[in-house]
Amino acid sequence: MQIFKGPAPSVSARAAKLVETLIADADALRCSVTTGAAGERCIDLGAEVPGGLEAGRRLAEICLGGLGTVTLTMDSGLKRWPLAVTVHAMESITACLGSQYAGWQITDEETGFFALGSGPARALSRVEELYKELGYVDQFNKATIVIEGDKAPPAPAARKIAAACGVKPEDLTVLFAPTGSLAGTVQIAARVLEVALHKAHALHFPLENIADGIGTAPLAPPVPDFIGAMGRTNDAIIYGGRVQLFVRGSNEAAEKLAKQLPSNTCSAYGEPFADIFAAAGGDFYKIDPMLFSPAEVIVSNLDTGTTFHAGELAPDVVDKSFR
Amino acid sequence: MQIFKGPAPSVSARAAKLVETLIADADALRCSVTTGAAGERCIDLGAEVPGGLEAGRRLAEICLGGLGTVTLTMDSGLKRWPLAVTVHAMESITACLGSQYAGWQITDEETGFFALGSGPARALSRVEELYKELGYVDQFNKATIVIEGDKAPPAPAARKIAAACGVKPEDLTVLFAPTGSLAGTVQIAARVLEVALHKAHALHFPLENIADGIGTAPLAPPVPDFIGAMGRTNDAIIYGGRVQLFVRGSNEAAEKLAKQLPSNTCSAYGEPFADIFAAAGGDFYKIDPMLFSPAEVIVSNLDTGTTFHAGELAPDVVDKSFR
Amino acid sequence: MQIFKGPAPSVSARAAKLVETLIADADALRCSVTTGAAGERCIDLGAEVPGGLEAGRRLAEICLGGLGTVTLTMDSGLKRWPLAVTVHAMESITACLGSQYAGWQITDEETGFFALGSGPARALSRVEELYKELGYVDQFNKATIVIEGDKAPPAPAARKIAAACGVKPEDLTVLFAPTGSLAGTVQIAARVLEVALHKAHALHFPLENIADGIGTAPLAPPVPDFIGAMGRTNDAIIYGGRVQLFVRGSNEAAEKLAKQLPSNTCSAYGEPFADIFAAAGGDFYKIDPMLFSPAEVIVSNLDTGTTFHAGELAPDVVDKSFR
Repeated sequence: MQIFKGPAPSVSARAAKLVETLIADADALRCSVTTGAAGERCIDLGAEVPGGLEAGRRLAEICLGGLGTVTLTMDSGLKRWPLAVTVHAMESITACLGSQYAGWQITDEETGFFALGSGPARALSRVEELYKELGYVDQFNKATIVIEGDKAPPAPAARKIAAACGVKPEDLTVLFAPTGSLAGTVQIAARVLEVALHKAHALHFPLENIADGIGTAPLAPPVPDFIGAMGRTNDAIIYGGRVQLFVRGSNEAAEKLAKQLPSNTCSAYGEPFADIFAAAGGDFYKIDPMLFSPAEVIVSNLDTGTTFHAGELAPDVVDKSFR
Repeated sequence: MQIFKGPAPSVSARAAKLVETLIADADALRCSVTTGAAGERCIDLGAEVPGGLEAGRRLAEICLGGLGTVTLTMDSGLKRWPLAVTVHAMESITACLGSQYAGWQITDEETGFFALGSGPARALSRVEELYKELGYVDQFNKATIVIEGDKAPPAPAARKIAAACGVKPEDLTVLFAPTGSLAGTVQIAARVLEVALHKAHALHFPLENIADGIGTAPLAPPVPDFIGAMGRTNDAIIYGGRVQLFVRGSNEAAEKLAKQLPSNTCSAYGEPFADIFAAAGGDFYKIDPMLFSPAEVIVSNLDTGTTFHAGELAPDVVDKSFR
Repeated sequence: MQIFKGPAPSVSARAAKLVETLIADADALRCSVTTGAAGERCIDLGAEVPGGLEAGRRLAEICLGGLGTVTLTMDSGLKRWPLAVTVHAMESITACLGSQYAGWQITDEETGFFALGSGPARALSRVEELYKELGYVDQFNKATIVIEGDKAPPAPAARKIAAACGVKPEDLTVLFAPTGSLAGTVQIAARVLEVALHKAHALHFPLENIADGIGTAPLAPPVPDFIGAMGRTNDAIIYGGRVQLFVRGSNEAAEKLAKQLPSNTCSAYGEPFADIFAAAGGDFYKIDPMLFSPAEVIVSNLDTGTTFHAGELAPDVVDKSFR
């Protein structure tokens, strides 16, 4: 079978529609919509406002470039923590890596602002190497960026983001929610599929051989402390996440992917992420990036019909983390 | 974090849109739409018409004032009774207590009609004490009321409802489904979150400290006998319901809430509701109101990140009740 | 209670709207939309294009005549194969038997084309005996047919289909996906409720006594080989499917239905379908049609409130089949 070469959907165009719907419901979702100093639109989903689970669910679908479906369920597979987020997308690679992945390092020397940008604006700015490999190009006159943090970028940073996306600042929408907020926690849990795809990419599995995927992860109880929240939201995926990928190619490649993909292949595996982070002296980049993957992985090869299972849920570590 | 003080969404306006969608699908949903003697619109979802699961799901979302999401799943957590209803809302307190709670005692001496009204019309009439505490005010020119019963109110009662809501009788929509109908059963199961919030309120936990929640309950098999249906639909929540609440405040308060919230804190707990009702001589008001709550409760404190678990599913009592 | 006699919804009209939505998303869903030689519209969801899980979910809802809700979950009830499809409908009988059932044998002597047609066009052509019993009549100026296969019908067959439906060829839409494609697998799993209803009908249970139903089935890992794919997609339902039906009538009739409905009542039960098929010499019609039913069945009688359970999931056979 040939790989599809149809016209690519615009993640920015699709997300823009969802942003309008979110704004129409902003009061009910307990989000605030304001205009920033550069003229950009700022949507707070959990910093100075309560936001909530549904705000986070909407945020996650926006972050997926309007290609994904995110549902809240009471069936994580973990008895003590039933609340879960399930995610799949029309085009998993474009949705998760082309839009949702938090790969854009946004810095502004003038104000000292730093954030990892995710969402469809990334595919407009294309400042990341990743886009060369994805081959995905988007064009749209409105940019939507998602920031995991407690504030919107200052005006100079907003102007830089807009400029990088080729839009006017007033055509930029910035959505933000802290890691420890309800909305933030939901949108991070909804990264369970993206995390698997990103690790598959890091393992040099050809992305064009990943046809589809679906994932689920428990919702970590939010905690205000950033390190604690980062720890738990990572643990939700590392020890509580499950993903099924549908791939093409040889069984050897599929089996290798399955064996290497789960978090338990990493030596650091076994303790809550906050402990691993502390042991690494608080240096994120000293942690083996291969740890960032779901606990349980199912890889089904569409070309042969063979499925490979690897990893498993670690409810005891989840309990230790979520408490 | 400050409690959100944004403009309140109108549960009547939001529900009115869902009512129009339901009417457009009335034939497929096997519901009837008629005009009552006072000019009000009557929608039967299960008395003289079959209605069904989907009709009940729509009814539940209308009852939540258009703020909630109700899904049917095959994963109640109970092996023998997998079919379940899961519910969450954009604004849990407004959706569940401000709209969904069956708190409006509608009586008409002239015709002897009595019913408990639920749904968004309650927030227009504001005849209940509860609204003073909620501080929620709604204004809309159309009223939507939900009645758990086998008939719409007679004309004098319909006129009274409309007058109390400040709308003309022809701008009143009455939706009704018997307790023992499919639609009725679904909409009652969808009260699992509301029941938890209402008991939290009765326990004097400050409502402004409840940030969000989600719940799930198995669907009781409908039974025509009203007492039987009332028993089972209560048992679905009391012995089969699970809720997670996200609160603010001290851990002491959150822990106290978790410990007091589940149904098993009540001395009457342990037998099917119909038996408890019979033992109380058929007097509903002799039953400890604290019984009305989910079987299992998870309370997560957003201010500290600590979670408290209490209660558990009682599959044996559910089996005894659902048979 | 009287059986509802309201105006019947048009499955073709409802499906046509979903088809337009699918076409609007065709690039994101990785489906192709082309015009066939007879002027008909052809939508490929998995033969020459990748399609995917979401394409299959949409296809299933179209096949249900726009009356059904199909969701992807990670909770099949089978530990090793969590991905599942859950389905319910506004009018189960009309949606599943009046539209979704693959009952239209389309043959074209000229080209040797043969396919089983499913979807709303069946209710326009009404060439099947079944429609006399269903009493369902549809009228619409656009026809939508779903074919489980790797190609659209040739022009003469397309003209015959259109003529049988009373529409011009250019008002016919043909959607197709192979059994072994992702979209095909999803739409077949979504037949779990239809399979139960069809067997209930074959068992002479009065269809007017089936008020509603809901079902779930695991998603078989797709396999390119047609026999293998047919085997697994059948096994997903036969050994992994669960259905709850809500019926009317006597408890005797309901109990009899429950006891006869699950797949384990059939002597061939116990081995993967591909093996049963081989043992029958590759002759589909030598296999007991009673095998085609869900593994686990719950029948709840709305007239008495009594529920009957029969059958059970067979995770070991599913493992043997899905591998």
